[in-house]
Order: sequence, then structure tokens, then C-alpha cells
Amino acid sequence: MTSIHRAVLRITCPDRAGIVSEVSGLLFRLGLNIHHADQHLDAEANLFFQRIEFPVPEDWERVSAELKKALDGMGMHSSLRRLSERLRVGVLISKHPHCGLDILDRHRTGELHCDVPVVISNHADLGPEISRRGYTFVHEAIAGNKAEQEQRILARLAEERVDLVILARYMQILTGNFVAAYPNQVINIHHSFLPAFAGAEPYRQAFRKGVKLVGATSHYVTEQLDEGPIIAQGVTRVSHRDTVKDMERKGRDLERVVLAEAVRCHLEDRIIAYGHKTVVFE
Amino acid sequence: MTSIHRAVLRITCPDRAGIVSEVSGLLFRLGLNIHHADQHLDAEANLFFQRIEFPVPEDWERVSAELKKALDGMGMHSSLRRLSERLRVGVLISKHPHCGLDILDRHRTGELHCDVPVVISNHADLGPEISRRGYTFVHEAIAGNKAEQEQRILARLAEERVDLVILARYMQILTGNFVAAYPNQVINIHHSFLPAFAGAEPYRQAFRKGVKLVGATSHYVTEQLDEGPIIAQGVTRVSHRDTVKDMERKGRDLERVVLAEAVRCHLEDRIIAYGHKTVVFE
Amino acid sequence: MTSIHRAVLRITCPDRAGIVSEVSGLLFRLGLNIHHADQHLDAEANLFFQRIEFPVPEDWERVSAELKKALDGMGMHSSLRRLSERLRVGVLISKHPHCGLDILDRHRTGELHCDVPVVISNHADLGPEISRRGYTFVHEAIAGNKAEQEQRILARLAEERVDLVILARYMQILTGNFVAAYPNQVINIHHSFLPAFAGAEPYRQAFRKGVKLVGATSHYVTEQLDEGPIIAQGVTRVSHRDTVKDMERKGRDLERVVLAEAVRCHLEDRIIAYGHKTVVFE
Amino acid sequence: MTSIHRAVLRITCPDRAGIVSEVSGLLFRLGLNIHHADQHLDAEANLFFQRIEFPVPEDWERVSAELKKALDGMGMHSSLRRLSERLRVGVLISKHPHCGLDILDRHRTGELHCDVPVVISNHADLGPEISRRGYTFVHEAIAGNKAEQEQRILARLAEERVDLVILARYMQILTGNFVAAYPNQVINIHHSFLPAFAGAEPYRQAFRKGVKLVGATSHYVTEQLDEGPIIAQGVTRVSHRDTVKDMERKGRDLERVVLAEAVRCHLEDRIIAYGHKTVVFE
Repeated sequence: MTSIHRAVLRITCPDRAGIVSEVSGLLFRLGLNIHHADQHLDAEANLFFQRIEFPVPEDWERVSAELKKALDGMGMHSSLRRLSERLRVGVLISKHPHCGLDILDRHRTGELHCDVPVVISNHADLGPEISRRGYTFVHEAIAGNKAEQEQRILARLAEERVDLVILARYMQILTGNFVAAYPNQVINIHHSFLPAFAGAEPYRQAFRKGVKLVGATSHYVTEQLDEGPIIAQGVTRVSHRDTVKDMERKGRDLERVVLAEAVRCHLEDRIIAYGHKTVVFE
Repeated sequence: MTSIHRAVLRITCPDRAGIVSEVSGLLFRLGLNIHHADQHLDAEANLFFQRIEFPVPEDWERVSAELKKALDGMGMHSSLRRLSERLRVGVLISKHPHCGLDILDRHRTGELHCDVPVVISNHADLGPEISRRGYTFVHEAIAGNKAEQEQRILARLAEERVDLVILARYMQILTGNFVAAYPNQVINIHHSFLPAFAGAEPYRQAFRKGVKLVGATSHYVTEQLDEGPIIAQGVTRVSHRDTVKDMERKGRDLERVVLAEAVRCHLEDRIIAYGHKTVVFE
Repeated sequence: MTSIHRAVLRITCPDRAGIVSEVSGLLFRLGLNIHHADQHLDAEANLFFQRIEFPVPEDWERVSAELKKALDGMGMHSSLRRLSERLRVGVLISKHPHCGLDILDRHRTGELHCDVPVVISNHADLGPEISRRGYTFVHEAIAGNKAEQEQRILARLAEERVDLVILARYMQILTGNFVAAYPNQVINIHHSFLPAFAGAEPYRQAFRKGVKLVGATSHYVTEQLDEGPIIAQGVTRVSHRDTVKDMERKGRDLERVVLAEAVRCHLEDRIIAYGHKTVVFE
Repeated sequence: MTSIHRAVLRITCPDRAGIVSEVSGLLFRLGLNIHHADQHLDAEANLFFQRIEFPVPEDWERVSAELKKALDGMGMHSSLRRLSERLRVGVLISKHPHCGLDILDRHRTGELHCDVPVVISNHADLGPEISRRGYTFVHEAIAGNKAEQEQRILARLAEERVDLVILARYMQILTGNFVAAYPNQVINIHHSFLPAFAGAEPYRQAFRKGVKLVGATSHYVTEQLDEGPIIAQGVTRVSHRDTVKDMERKGRDLERVVLAEAVRCHLEDRIIAYGHKTVVFE
């Protein structure tokens, strides 16, 4: 069965006896057949997490309403979505093209199931490249007033009813205002193995430190710079032979894969963020 | 909760609607609280697999009997075990010490929860090393009659009530007779990334081929040499600089880790073998 | 110093005392300053390999002629090239776009220093995508006569004075005739960890076998299918959860990186192929 | 040729034209045949590094003296050693056995060519284990006076003429005094991917941060805690399922391999430390 005929239920609640039985019993009574289920217990936090995939029933409206109502009645925090309801994604870029173009390529070839109504940049450079691929490109220059530029971006994202913002090497720090508008809905790619080398020029920091591996980290954006819940990480070998430029080259391949992995997991409702950590059901 | 107070249930059955609900409902009625559950559906084979961990109830004898009976009634193939019932492991070695000693080290330091009543070798060389660590070492020389030697090994393993046989670089091919006595209960480590370089001298084969990665594969032993269900695999980088000796050195580290991973998963009932594949619930 | 002002000398010869001294003495007398040197001795084959990078001297024509003449006199097989003399690359593709487009992206963004005068396919599908990026696309359909189609491709590559042919998931087997025209000048990407799963549908083979890692291999093409000298390899983790489609998705990321690595090394004269192996000076 | 008949020359000097030619010419005139050479240029620091392996000549005393004298005359910082002159290694441990025992195992099986005259611990626990393997174990308790304990350790290391100190999970911070006595001759294994999670309890830090990879770092010890030149690093995947205990288990395998790699490179004179970085000629 292709993903568009599946629905995904995510549950978070304090742990107690019988949860799995209650939830699976509920689904069974509603005639829903669990195709895939994954669960996690954070014993320290006493929190239970579950992700269930099931085929979309014919009378979705009625069944999903009943399901949601019952889960609410059981005191569970839940989300429910048919994967055919594609999320709307806004991509923010600056001058480095590799991550942004890669996301668009994966979108066009059907690897990422979503809509991409708008690509926004604080620089005009990548406009032709983006437009040529058939995407709407918007140039929002900072021009001395960053707060206003961010407001214009937020307005455009709202207008496009964007559900997920991807910072594909967008080189500006977002304000708390922006982050609050998209809680756990802004994914950034940082070009280091966080928490090492947060902040500016991580490859230069890595070169100076003489590390033997460089990394990339995708994470949800919070008000604390480079401190949000980590979704995916990767590393690749470097040696004394590698210049900063070599690290950048190797890093580009990492960044693409690590960002795409995070975006795919988000689009398929595979991530539950809580506190400053994530559960990622692969 | 430490592992010794947990029980593990594994289920395999043809897929149909409602299995998850039925099983979790059954556990709930028996007062068992699911601490961890993992499941898998092989859509091609129409087979459903599940592994459930729950705390051992006080009246284990009664509850486990009821559980087993109910599952049998539901037509499910199942296994049920308290992790405190340690498996009994027989280790077979030849002359290479690294894998065998590593398994014993992990046993002594408590990483592998099992009993190791006997270590058997077709060579006497490693006897002192094994004995010094406090393990029973048995030398069963082939001495021109391999069939008889294998019979003596089987007799000893039976006498020690061994549940799992580990071939820790045991350099003899087992007969179908031996394999039939321990179905999916003999774990081998092959020093290549199978199915590449099956058979003898895989590092030499890899060197001749000029590959850029060498691997190791742990698998259950079947009658077909190096063809049994794969449990775990790993690889490490090599280059034109690496001689066969270098590959052997790098390979030893891989072999240890890949074998130990397979053994740990087996001891914790994390593996379900079916056909010539495995489900490994990590 | 950027790569375009560097020259690369590669030497292969039977090993004997004093080679390094002779070669470095020769370069010194010609006023050439070694910026980077790497060497390798295959003791079994008694072959010595060396790669030397040095800044291009002002009177290149004279100096390079003298250098080449002296090396010939010393009985050495050598190649000499200024990296500013960009190789001319022909890309062959079929229907899978990811490897071909990735090579073109890396070319356009300056990561791969070469010219790409032509992209040829046995299918028309990717034409618009290629043309839109500003590359010349040629559709050479097989149309029942594969020998003639291959002749037309060879003619076009010759016309474009192509130095390197990249098979970016080109799904046709080349004849010995084609391979002989470009010895160690055709790079293929095979979507498995060779020598495992040579031939058709490697991901399906991997799925059936139940391996826990899937790989990709870039290699020079010889008359033996999937048997040519290996240049680079990579692997990525899979589990029982991964369908053939999931393996294909994960594999695409591997294939891109492993192919690009091989092409970059070839373009920078980092590879020396001998027998059915390679020396890759990273 | 086995390693014991080889000599290794390491050179560090400011970069200038003709160095490679001068050095290789010098070796040639002394009748020394370069078997392996590797070099590196740090363009920022304008420093040239070279490592050369050659067979030990019959009249070693005379030839090595001439070589050293000539190199001194050329203003080069150099080291020269026959690999048959085994380094003397002191191993410092605390309560975690895995790294220390692993180093001893690699020593006994001939993987690490060195002498290990003494193993010292601030705890008595591992004494029997070490002694049983035939090594000299010394218990130096801190007993309220850490400075005196360190003095006793230094005295013992001096008495044993130790060339290299390995901190195999030795859980005490060394004073500047100790470090000054063994500049770039103390190798530590830190159980994180430095510079992330320096200091105490790195796996707990990693767990709290929710990283998706945990690492290990071997480095020379300097006065700055966990800040010395990095020699080798490795990482392994973790997920939300992994507890701190799981990370510790996975980490032990990493720590062993990463520490052993650093020690092997040091014993074979493959490392040149400069500033707070290393060149590692593999």
C-alpha cells in the first residue's frame, strides 16, 4: 500500500498500565487494522509515546472524529493525519544552494511527499535556479531592517498556509517571535556534530580544533541558537590533509542527507519532540 | 528495572486484522503491563512478528501457562521466557583467540547475560588462556575422524544442556547432523561482508579483489556454508595501503563487535529467524 | 593555491632502489617544487606508484617536455597534466535521474573541474530536465539495433573529444568494442557492495538475502560485467523494516556520493589502475 | 618485511623548495631505500612534515649517526628509530577494565609492538585480573594526598624507563607537572566526540542532550583537560531507545578501537603533534 492511503496516529501521555491494550482495543472496535506500530517509554520522564499506521477507512470523517474524541477522553495528547493530506512546506535559503536544491529535487522526484508553495531567500542569487525548476521564488532582502524582513516572511508563509519551514542553510538567526509561530515546525541543518561547534563557521572551528570527523545535525529550531531538539546526525572522516574547503565539500554531502532524513521523518509524522529531545520512529 | 526481572514474548503468525488488539488485550486481562513492544509485518510473506517485554508477575507459573495456552488457541507460534532464565552457551574455537576471548570477557563483565559451561576447541593451543580465566576448556582433536569428533562435541554440549552454540572463529564446517540438532541456535562469525567472499580466506579474497571496505557477518548456521540467516553486519574502510595482515587486524575489531551484537540479541530473544532471513528487534 | 595552477605527475614502474630520490632530484633540477607527494609500493607485484603535485612553472612547454623525456629515459610509465587542462566528460544516463543530475549539479557549482559537452541517453525522458540546466542532451534510442546505437554514441563522444565517460545509472551493458575505446576511462556506479549482488536488480537481491547493510560501488568498466577495478565504495544500514523501495531510496544517496568521489579522483589524476585493482591517492 | 627490520624517520621543518629532493637524495647517498614515504604541508603554518620507512641497514650505528647529523645541518627537527627498539609503555587504569585489558590483549597477541613493564591503578580492584595475565600490577591509592600519589606514579614510570603512558579510562586528572614530564607521550581515551561533552560523565551528557551518535576520542594529554591534540575519533549510532547504560555498552567497543588505533600509530611513529593538532600518517 502506498503512503497516501495510510493514516498516522501519534500519542504522548504519562505512562500507566494498560495503555497499549486500550489504544489497540479502541482501534479494533473502530474497524482499524494496525499495519505498523512503534512505541517508546521514557522511564525517567514517565512518558509513553506511540506511533501507529493504519489504512484509511472509507468513512474517514466519522471514524477519525470518534477516534480523536475517545483519545481525548483517555487524557492522551494525540495527532492524527492521513498521509494524503500533504504538508505545505516553505523553504528558506541564502546563498549556498546545495541543501535547498536537494530538497526541491527530492520533492520533484516524489521522494518527499509534500507541497512546496514558496522558496524565500534574503539574497537574490538563487532566484533563477529555483524559478527554472518551476518553484515560486521570493526575495526578501534585509535592507537594514531585519525585524521587518522577518515579518514579511512570516506573512508570506501564513498566506501560503505553510505547515513546515525548512532552513536549508538559511544564514540568519530567527527571532523568538518567528520560532513561537512554528513550534517544532522549523527544521534547521547545522553543519557540525552538535553540540560541538555551535555558532558561526563550524568547519573552520573543526579545522582549527583538528578533529578527525566532521558532522551535520538537523534539529527543530528553538529560541536558543543551535540548541533545539536533535532529529538526525551524521559524520564523515577527515584527516590532516583536509583543508576547510575539503571539509565544506565533504560536509555538503552530509548536510543534504541529514536534512532530507529529518524532513522525511517530519512529513511522515515519525517524530515526537518533547522537552529538548526527540523520539524518531524510523 | 534490570533485565533479569523482565519476560519476553515473541510471536509469529500469518497476518490478519486485530492481532495487536487481541494480544495486548490478552496481556492486559492477565495483569501484564507492556514495557516495550515492537512488531513487524512482512507484507510479501503475509507474516506478522511481535516482541513484547513485560515485568515478570509474581505468579509466573500460572500466568505464563495461561498466556501460552491462549496464544496457542489463537493459532500463534510463540516463545516465552523470563530473562532471568539464562541461556547456556557453548563456545567453539580453533586457533584465533580474539572472538572467543571477547565473548568470555563480555560474559565475565556482565555484558552478556548467560552461562558458559564449556569452551571446546579442535586445537589445544588456547587451553591455558581459557582455563586461566576460569572457564572449562575441552580439547576435541579431529585426529583423522571428523565425524567422531563432532559426535563427541555434540555429546558434551548435550551433557551441558547448551541452548546456544557460538562459533567464535571455529574453522571447521559442521555437518547437517550437527546443524539439525541446534536449529537457529548456532551463531557463526564470517570475516567478510556476505554474500561477498564466502568460503575460505575472505581477507585474501578481498585483497585480491581490491575492495575499499572489508566486512564481517554474524549469522545462524544452516547446512549451506555461509548461507544462513544474517543477524548483524559491519564494515570498515581499507585502501590500497592495506595488506592482508592489515585487513586481518582491522577485521578482528569488526568481528568481535558483530559477533557480540548477534549473541546479545539472541540472548535477549530479540531475533526471529524465518525462511533465510531474520527480524532483529533492537 | 587553487587547483588550476597545479600540475600532476603520476608514475608507475617496477620497484628498485633510489626511485624517489631520482624523481625528486629530477624535479628539483627542473626548478619544480613538490607541493604534495604520495607513493605506494605493491610488494607482491613489485610495482612502485607515485603521484606528485607541483605548481605549474612559467615555461610549461619546455619544462614538461624535458620532464617527460627524462622519465621515459628512466623507463617509467608516466602521465603529466596541468589541472587547468580540464578533462572533457560525456555522461550516459537512462531513466533514473539522481546520479546524472548530481554530476551535473557538482559540475555547475564548481565542485567537479571538467567540461561536460554532452549527455546521452537511450531514453528521451530526462531530456527536458537536462536541457533546462543548459546541457546538450542527445537521445540515442536502441530501436532494435543495439550495436548501431553504440556506434552512434561512440561517434558522438569522439566528435566531442571526450576523455572520460560516466555511466550515471546507464542501464545498458557496453560491448568490448566500446570499452576498448576508453580503457580505464569509463566509470560506472553499481548499486551494490561488489562483488556481492553483481548483475541486475541488486537491491532486490539484497532484500531477498536479508543483508543488514546495502552498498554502492564505483569502478572502471572492463569487458567483464561489474568486474572492473573498484575506485570507491560505501554502505548504509538497513533492517528488516526496509522494503526494496526503502533500499532504493537510501541507495540513491550512497550512489551519488560514491560516484562523485570516483569522478573527482579521476579528474584530479588521483587514480592509478593496474591489473584489476586501483591505487587511489586521496 | 616485518616491522622489526624497518626504521622510521620523521621530519618537521618550515616549508621551502627542494626539501623532498634533499632528503631523498641524502637517504640515497647513505644507501637507504625508501620503502614508504608520506608527507604533508600545512600551508597556513608553512610547516612541512614527512615520515619515511626504510629497511634497517647493517651498519645502523654509523648510518643513523650520519643521517641525524646531516638532517640537523639542514635545520630539520627529526626523529629516527628502528621499530625493533620497542617503546616501553605504562598503562594507568582505575575501575573500568575494558580499555586496559584490551591494550594488554593486543600486546600479548602481538598486535601492539611494545613492552609493558607496569600497569598502575588508583584502585586495587583490577589487580588480580592484570596479574593473572602476567603483568606487573601496582596499586597507588590516593588516600587523601593526590600530589604524593602522582609523585609515586612518576617515580615508578621513571624507574621502568617508560616512553609512553596510556590512560586507559584512568579517572584522575593529571597535574601540569606530570604532563610536562611526558610531552605528547600521554595518550588518553575520552568517551565522547570531543569537543562535545568534555569533562565528567559524557554519556550522561549525551543522553540528556538527545544526540543521535555517541563518540570516543583519543588524544595527547596537555594541561587543558580534554583539550590536547586529537589522534583518532569514532562514533556509533544511538537512538531514543538507548539508555545511558546502552550508550556505555556501545561506547566501550568504540573506546577500545579508538584508543588502540592511537596507541598503534604512536608506537609506529606515525603521529607528529604540533600546536594543538596532529598529523597522523596512516
